[in-house]
Amino acid sequence: MLNRTKIKVRGYHIDLFQHVNNARYLEFLEEGRWAFFDEFNAGNELIEQGLAWAVVNININFRSEASFGDLLEVQTRYAKIGNRSITMKQTILNTKNQSLVAEADVTYVCFSKTLKAAVPLPDELKHTIEQAIASSE
Amino acid sequence: MLNRTKIKVRGYHIDLFQHVNNARYLEFLEEGRWAFFDEFNAGNELIEQGLAWAVVNININFRSEASFGDLLEVQTRYAKIGNRSITMKQTILNTKNQSLVAEADVTYVCFSKTLKAAVPLPDELKHTIEQAIASSE
Amino acid sequence: MLNRTKIKVRGYHIDLFQHVNNARYLEFLEEGRWAFFDEFNAGNELIEQGLAWAVVNININFRSEASFGDLLEVQTRYAKIGNRSITMKQTILNTKNQSLVAEADVTYVCFSKTLKAAVPLPDELKHTIEQAIASSE
Amino acid sequence: MLNRTKIKVRGYHIDLFQHVNNARYLEFLEEGRWAFFDEFNAGNELIEQGLAWAVVNININFRSEASFGDLLEVQTRYAKIGNRSITMKQTILNTKNQSLVAEADVTYVCFSKTLKAAVPLPDELKHTIEQAIASSE
Repeated sequence: MLNRTKIKVRGYHIDLFQHVNNARYLEFLEEGRWAFFDEFNAGNELIEQGLAWAVVNININFRSEASFGDLLEVQTRYAKIGNRSITMKQTILNTKNQSLVAEADVTYVCFSKTLKAAVPLPDELKHTIEQAIASSE
Repeated sequence: MLNRTKIKVRGYHIDLFQHVNNARYLEFLEEGRWAFFDEFNAGNELIEQGLAWAVVNININFRSEASFGDLLEVQTRYAKIGNRSITMKQTILNTKNQSLVAEADVTYVCFSKTLKAAVPLPDELKHTIEQAIASSE
Repeated sequence: MLNRTKIKVRGYHIDLFQHVNNARYLEFLEEGRWAFFDEFNAGNELIEQGLAWAVVNININFRSEASFGDLLEVQTRYAKIGNRSITMKQTILNTKNQSLVAEADVTYVCFSKTLKAAVPLPDELKHTIEQAIASSE
Repeated sequence: MLNRTKIKVRGYHIDLFQHVNNARYLEFLEEGRWAFFDEFNAGNELIEQGLAWAVVNININFRSEASFGDLLEVQTRYAKIGNRSITMKQTILNTKNQSLVAEADVTYVCFSKTLKAAVPLPDELKHTIEQAIASSE
């Protein structure tokens, strides 16, 4: 389970320093995660059970600059699973030379809307994610 | 009824052309309108009656560029009133030399959430806005 | 010369009112114009002559709401030409039912970086754009 | 050296989940850092020496949601210093109840534009930052 989403760097992504702004990368990452959930039809089972993924941490390393006109590829996959949380690994590559632009770990907890608290992942979903992680190693 | 809101141009407001991006001005205008509604405690009477302002048109002229570090002032006021609509006039000045950066007309209709259609403005609100426009001319 | 660019509405495009935020539409329009310039390899001849398009007016009508998950199509074309200016017509359709979401006229002047003033369009470019407009009517 | 910057949560900061979007927090943090550099007149000495701060990592924890109308305070300070890098600690508080909304470590390297590489911090600047960190503990 690996989603690849392409984003072309446009004039409005660029900031004072003539490269893609930090905050834009978080939108690029969010775009990649929505595309991942679309492609693998993931996330719906959570919603049906009154649960939701709540982002609790984003740790992003900026490795090289991206400039106007560059075509980026956002890669998104499951990377780690805990009792109540998952971590997705996202990497952004510059397709020009396959250089690494940024890499991020995005950690979610499974959140119950009724309990207003983090709860253990449903077993079936946990199993699906564990398999996805195992098969990608 | 005139609200003045200050915004300092930061690195993330700037785009490829080293000036404030077009789309950012719409956020600056929205910031100005929220501040207007806060200052004059306006808009609440609408919500209580199941109504909402829905933006139907924005017509914005870009008069001069704004650059990193400039301190802008967004001025917001009521400008026109119709049976089902109002138009707010917003101007953005550069406080450095009082030059005009942008000016916009933002037109709302009074929208009923239950009818899902534009409806006439409540009389009391119409009266308040008419007075505000008259006194500012 | 008509560019069609698809944009899927994601969670970060949505605002307090659970529809796409006004300012986002200006980014969608800018995305469409960059894609237009890419597709038709337009704009480069300007840059080579020390000229640039400077946006002087955007007039946007919001016709219907777009919501999370909708797939939008931004259509971009030349619509009008003056001595020193062009107007592009952009329409945003919801592919779900082909309803009109927004339509905008975006007016540029041809700007000389050395003169720091609007100047007449180069003849060759003017001719190309006139033909594009004529053939699309 | 602690900068406090207030930001009121507006309609355009909110996303599908009716709270402030992840990417917006990075803009709030950037706003706080610009305000910090303004307040303490920091950063200019770098630019004069052909150096720049380049962000290499942002690690942000989301502790509680912020909603429409909340007044946030972004607190920014120096937290750590290395030979070629500094880390700023930023916390975002909800002034309603002083609850912690988010906290982030933002790490910069000192980057030479001519060498296109990370270089040691100038001694004087290093000393200033060390004192700022020591006095805030």
